[in-house]
Amino acid sequence: MLGEAHLAQLFNRPGHSVVEHCTYFVASDGDLMEGASHEACSLAGHLKLGRLIGIYDDNRITIDGKTDLTFSDETAKRFESYGWHVERVADGNDLGALDAALAAARRVADRPSLVIVRTHIAYGSPHKQDTPEAHGAPLGADEVKLTKRRLGWPSLEPFYVPEEALAHWRLARERGARLEAEWSKKYDAYRQAYPELAAELERRLAGRLPDGWDAGLPTFAPPPADAQATRAASGKVLNAIAPKLPELVGGSADLAGSTHVVFKNQGDVAAGSWGARNIHFGVREHGMGAILNGLALHRGVRPVGSTFLIFSDYMRPPIRLAALGDLPVIYVFTHDSIGLGEDGPTHQPIEQLAALRAIPNLVVIRPADATETVEAWRMAILSRTGPVALVLTRQKVPVIDRAKYAPANGLRLGGYVLADARGGRPAIVLLASGSEVDIVLGAYERLTAEGIGARVVSLPSMELFARQPQEYRDAVLPPAVPARLAVEAAAPQPWYRWVGDQGVVMGIERFGASAPYQRIYQEFGLTVERVVETARRLIARGR
Amino acid sequence: MLGEAHLAQLFNRPGHSVVEHCTYFVASDGDLMEGASHEACSLAGHLKLGRLIGIYDDNRITIDGKTDLTFSDETAKRFESYGWHVERVADGNDLGALDAALAAARRVADRPSLVIVRTHIAYGSPHKQDTPEAHGAPLGADEVKLTKRRLGWPSLEPFYVPEEALAHWRLARERGARLEAEWSKKYDAYRQAYPELAAELERRLAGRLPDGWDAGLPTFAPPPADAQATRAASGKVLNAIAPKLPELVGGSADLAGSTHVVFKNQGDVAAGSWGARNIHFGVREHGMGAILNGLALHRGVRPVGSTFLIFSDYMRPPIRLAALGDLPVIYVFTHDSIGLGEDGPTHQPIEQLAALRAIPNLVVIRPADATETVEAWRMAILSRTGPVALVLTRQKVPVIDRAKYAPANGLRLGGYVLADARGGRPAIVLLASGSEVDIVLGAYERLTAEGIGARVVSLPSMELFARQPQEYRDAVLPPAVPARLAVEAAAPQPWYRWVGDQGVVMGIERFGASAPYQRIYQEFGLTVERVVETARRLIARGR
Repeated sequence: MLGEAHLAQLFNRPGHSVVEHCTYFVASDGDLMEGASHEACSLAGHLKLGRLIGIYDDNRITIDGKTDLTFSDETAKRFESYGWHVERVADGNDLGALDAALAAARRVADRPSLVIVRTHIAYGSPHKQDTPEAHGAPLGADEVKLTKRRLGWPSLEPFYVPEEALAHWRLARERGARLEAEWSKKYDAYRQAYPELAAELERRLAGRLPDGWDAGLPTFAPPPADAQATRAASGKVLNAIAPKLPELVGGSADLAGSTHVVFKNQGDVAAGSWGARNIHFGVREHGMGAILNGLALHRGVRPVGSTFLIFSDYMRPPIRLAALGDLPVIYVFTHDSIGLGEDGPTHQPIEQLAALRAIPNLVVIRPADATETVEAWRMAILSRTGPVALVLTRQKVPVIDRAKYAPANGLRLGGYVLADARGGRPAIVLLASGSEVDIVLGAYERLTAEGIGARVVSLPSMELFARQPQEYRDAVLPPAVPARLAVEAAAPQPWYRWVGDQGVVMGIERFGASAPYQRIYQEFGLTVERVVETARRLIARGR
Repeated sequence: MLGEAHLAQLFNRPGHSVVEHCTYFVASDGDLMEGASHEACSLAGHLKLGRLIGIYDDNRITIDGKTDLTFSDETAKRFESYGWHVERVADGNDLGALDAALAAARRVADRPSLVIVRTHIAYGSPHKQDTPEAHGAPLGADEVKLTKRRLGWPSLEPFYVPEEALAHWRLARERGARLEAEWSKKYDAYRQAYPELAAELERRLAGRLPDGWDAGLPTFAPPPADAQATRAASGKVLNAIAPKLPELVGGSADLAGSTHVVFKNQGDVAAGSWGARNIHFGVREHGMGAILNGLALHRGVRPVGSTFLIFSDYMRPPIRLAALGDLPVIYVFTHDSIGLGEDGPTHQPIEQLAALRAIPNLVVIRPADATETVEAWRMAILSRTGPVALVLTRQKVPVIDRAKYAPANGLRLGGYVLADARGGRPAIVLLASGSEVDIVLGAYERLTAEGIGARVVSLPSMELFARQPQEYRDAVLPPAVPARLAVEAAAPQPWYRWVGDQGVVMGIERFGASAPYQRIYQEFGLTVERVVETARRLIARGR
């Protein structure tokens, strides 16, 4: 719904309303019990989305029984408390009343509407109407026959379509074709009057990137220039591409200042200002995820949502739906480890990386530094067939010297050799992602100084790496080098695939702790010293 | 809160109200935006929990700005729509008004109460009062001084405690001691009058199991007796132990009939019937998880919650809190794979097992058959220091013949050798959990018939297995046998640790499909034939 309001404000011109449609949803009793209904409907009311119309199928039956077992909400009052307009239809089979209520809802332009329709599940079934049995299971052949008889249906054939219904359906097809022709005519007039706007709208609806969209991507200098958090680098990248990609819109669940997902000088979406680009979702992660999916399905916008990585747990259901529905949503998850420091175990993600990486068709990218963050955004923008999650640090990490080490565009392959043993086969491969790449680079330098040949593999995206041919993967992780050591400040589960039997994962298998982040890394043993020691032990064991 | 109402009804006697306390919560603007607030408060209203009192800290500030950026709810009206009583306090610094409102709330016994208190964040701070800056960051030393001056605080010392405050605090201590003594006297009288009830209450509050609690655990016969779903076996186990463990209470988020978490003839919790044992949570998974935590924290009950495994995604935040807080909550997650069949990819879990196994201090158990289900429940009941998730099938699985294969009590070690090569080292180890154990057992029989020595390892709980000494793990998964093949109808991520470099995981790396389950297993290649072929290839490769 927000997609329509946003594009309408940007693209419509006086006398040319080419973006103008209502969005309808149907909700059950169960949907209205779920917390996501609160988050999304509260925000829709706040934003006064007048073209959003819900139909509440109030049949008072859930799987385990009648709703009075669990549910006493006065739903009309609840939605009025969100600023919605409410209509009531006493009998869902009274199509005239339903039509009138929907027409009334469409006339209310300054707030969303909920039409509460009293219905009867399994209507007409002599034994199953108004029963929970009709919710979870089919009626069965006999009861279907009895129901048809009770309703006076003209035939007991399973798929009988009466002539009258077919004729009505064909009229609907004609009506649709007529409406589409009218709209096409209207759109042709718009294209004539505003050819550039029309071309841009078409580009955006088709999801085509403009030429040179990535020409202005920033570069970052290595030390002695300052270290910076990848979340901060991400904010710079976002604002570098934002002018060229006006379809990028989004924001955060009340953490925009922290996630750096802020489109500078692009306004805040509010009631009447739907064309702005910064969406404030409120403290509503599940609702944010669902709204991002709606925006992606609407097309014409490329939605970005952000929060702390720990709170990705609150929005897993919509992330999964984005992955299942091939929706190109971009998530920015910051404060990605114990490295966030003082907020402590409730805010420190441990299992979230493993949990996200397990979702099919979701690409997770955890860049090592500012330069990999540029490449991570490039991959996110180019990805069209599913969601991408960028996982970023709160704390500062050094910018890797790309003159000394390999270039960051290896990120597009998921993993790449960042630093290698000088001459000959490495004795050990050190793997890491994100902020821990700096730790293994430090260990690499120490081992090299000791005359031990090590290789560093930066593995920002396991999904992208797994898609590469076996040859490339073997070139990065040579089967002939069984000593492998992976370091990530998170649950180790995803790494066993890459280190193999004889490898070791230095991860975290407990909850975090509250302290300055350097101290926590120390206490949890994620240090250059420990990596060097463990590497030496691993190499010795292999001999 | 429900814990108090439940125990009060079971244990109080006329003139002896030993369970009688209010439960208070403090909620911020952000808390009331979160969907979980809808789920929990809607159910609390439905259950008319009169001793639940919320204090809404209405400061109108969130991290990203004033609440008018995202929030227009009429919260009083919203809570009234849930059946709550609402009080208002215009000024949070008016302690008399706050005290009066709380007293009024306590007098309303037939519904929960929300006290909406208008407050000012960083009250008294000259530059930060009523600003978002005061939400996410400390005031800073200078502003703290200015604030103390503005408020007329007698000292600028960082931790100065005025004599007057100390005296007041000590009075509170005395008052507390007096109240406790009064209660102890009351409790002594109760114990005298009802010694058996008191002993039982004390046992339940201490979390002690009664002697012989597991004497009546059922046994299940192998074929030709009928195969059965592990969810069905679970329901039988639950009802076998329920009479001996009256502290077990719980239910489902509207799927009790499907998850078989139904305490037979133990009544349904409803307003006025809080002492019953079946809790109907409604379609509210997140709320259910939070309520289970509340029940566990209250003590005196052992809470069980259930839903489909796919919907564990909706309740990850409270599952994590249970794990972080060492709460002995039991989850029953059924319909645990593509084996659920026709409901299709939206209902078929793929990544949920990996995601749950990644949570520290959560024990996940996926039993292979009815007999392992008995052992899984035994482990769940015995576990006191964190949550346990039982992961169960919708479809029927054969009962493993324990006369022929190893006994199921190996489950307590997480994984065990179920069937072994006859004489000598096995050529391959086949690993599986849950419904896929039957597939690898079939492959084992085929390989054995071909003269290939295989071992079958049932691995129902990776967490329990990982806790065993290395010797035991090496005895089950001999390092000398690198050919290992794991089969689980889920994302393969958790298995790489156990199969090693030269092993293979037959899992699922895409979303599911809608069909009868036998057909889906076939299409996804999870069959005895494919396991046998893959095993042969693996063995050949190793030679």
